[in-house]
Parts: sequence; C-alpha cells; structure tokens
Amino acid sequence: MADPDYRALLATAVAEARRGLAEGGIPIGAALYRDDGVLLGCGHNRRVQENDPSIHGETDAFRKAGRQRSYRDTIMVTTLAPCWYCSGLVRQFNIGTVVVGESVTFSGGIDWLRESGVRVIDLADPECIAMMRDFIAAHPALWNEDIGEA
Amino acid sequence: MADPDYRALLATAVAEARRGLAEGGIPIGAALYRDDGVLLGCGHNRRVQENDPSIHGETDAFRKAGRQRSYRDTIMVTTLAPCWYCSGLVRQFNIGTVVVGESVTFSGGIDWLRESGVRVIDLADPECIAMMRDFIAAHPALWNEDIGEA
Repeated sequence: MADPDYRALLATAVAEARRGLAEGGIPIGAALYRDDGVLLGCGHNRRVQENDPSIHGETDAFRKAGRQRSYRDTIMVTTLAPCWYCSGLVRQFNIGTVVVGESVTFSGGIDWLRESGVRVIDLADPECIAMMRDFIAAHPALWNEDIGEA
Repeated sequence: MADPDYRALLATAVAEARRGLAEGGIPIGAALYRDDGVLLGCGHNRRVQENDPSIHGETDAFRKAGRQRSYRDTIMVTTLAPCWYCSGLVRQFNIGTVVVGESVTFSGGIDWLRESGVRVIDLADPECIAMMRDFIAAHPALWNEDIGEA
C-alpha cells in the first residue's frame, strides 16, 4: 500500500489544536488513523478546559477511537512530539506509526520510540512550530505544568 | 520524614481493584498519595465498564487528583506494575515514588522507571498476585487487549 498523505492527516490534528487554542487551552491536537486512511478518533489537550491533566492530545484521540483489537496498522498523528506519557501509550499498544507535526519546541520520547521499532515521521511543519512557540512564550507556566516541569 | 506504611496505602488500591472486579472489569486499582499520607486521588481500570481503553488504574488516579503543581513528593500506588503507558505517565510528571502490589504476573516498565531515578517499591503482595493470576486465567483475551497484545 502506498504511504498515506501524512500532511493531509496532520491537518486533522492541527484543526484539533486550533480548537483547543480557541477554547483557551493548550494547542496540541492528535488523530488516530487506520493506515488505509480511516479516521478512528481525534482530540486535543484539555488540561485547562476540564481541569484534567490526563487528557493530552494523543490520549484523547486514543480514547475517542474506543476499544480496538489491534493498533499495529494504526497511525498516531500529533501536532507535537509525544511526551513520555503519550510515547508510553504508543509503545504499550504497539501503534505502528507516529507522525509528528514538529519536534523542535519539544522532542519528547521520539528517539525512544524509534529505538523500540516504531516508525516515526517528523514533518517539521512551520505552522505547528509557530503555534507551540507562540503558546509557550505566552504561557510558560501552563506549558511547564503540562509536561511536569512546574 | 519516616516512610509511609506502604501496605496501608496499597489497601486503597486493592479496594479499587476489587470494585473494578465487582463491576465486571479488569481488577487493577491505583491511588496517588502525597508522601505525608494525604490521598490525592484513586481509581481503577474501566476499559470494560466505559468501553474506554485510556482508563488504566494509574491514569484514573492521576486524573482524579486533578491538576497539581508538582508530583515530586507524590507516591503512585498500584496493585500491578505499571505498563509502558502508565510508566510514561510516572516519568513525564516526575512522580517520585511508585509502590506496586506485585510485578509477578506483569512487570511493565518498572526497571525503566528505576533506571530513570524513580523509587520503585515492590510489595510482592500475595493477594494482588492471586487476583491478577485468577483474572488472567479466566479472561485471557481481555487481559491481552488491555496490554496491547491482542
């Protein structure tokens, strides 16, 4: 099978991130796709909106996708490189591919995922980089809280 | 400060696991404590009950504790060694100590946590071992689904 158009998949995650930003939240979005292009679930960080530190973009997309028998043929698409929490999610459930919008502002666990056999595609997307850079500059305490650096 | 009575803390996680079992779910419970003994949150796996694969015992306890400025002085107590997903949670948020009821039926990421500086206390509790052993024997497919081995 030909590779999916990863930039088209990323657009879903970016739309989620922008929705989060509009809600006053941390602008990180994610989507879980089947590798044939079917969207299983998407979501965004809602630490601020729901006072819930457990909802990262990736965990929200994973939850929205419901119970799946296997994740081997799924693609986790996220606007920002996954933190250890979300990298652990990917590894535990054997998600085959991770597409990240960027890893410039935060690199998370992507090297660890690569070493453990996950295919990681980094799109180095300028829009994603600018969105996180602007957010971190404007809300450093909130960002640090979200990655446990508070 | 003297070490807390870890077996007393484990009792909270065991009670959560038993609640999950009574609900027809996977019997894994967890509790997040401050190291002065204050309970911040507790919960249990609810994959079956809510059809939600994102709710492991540890992520539920973390969520129930709400937003915290720092986790350095917290203790994650769980009936079973944390999987990669929950180990990643511990590492990302710099939870200082993890107490596991057992790591015989599943060892998860506890060696990785130890290597990254987390204090891991394994109580090798016979009740926890028996509870998981019985559950895995009775529901192997469900257990495999919960750890991404389906």
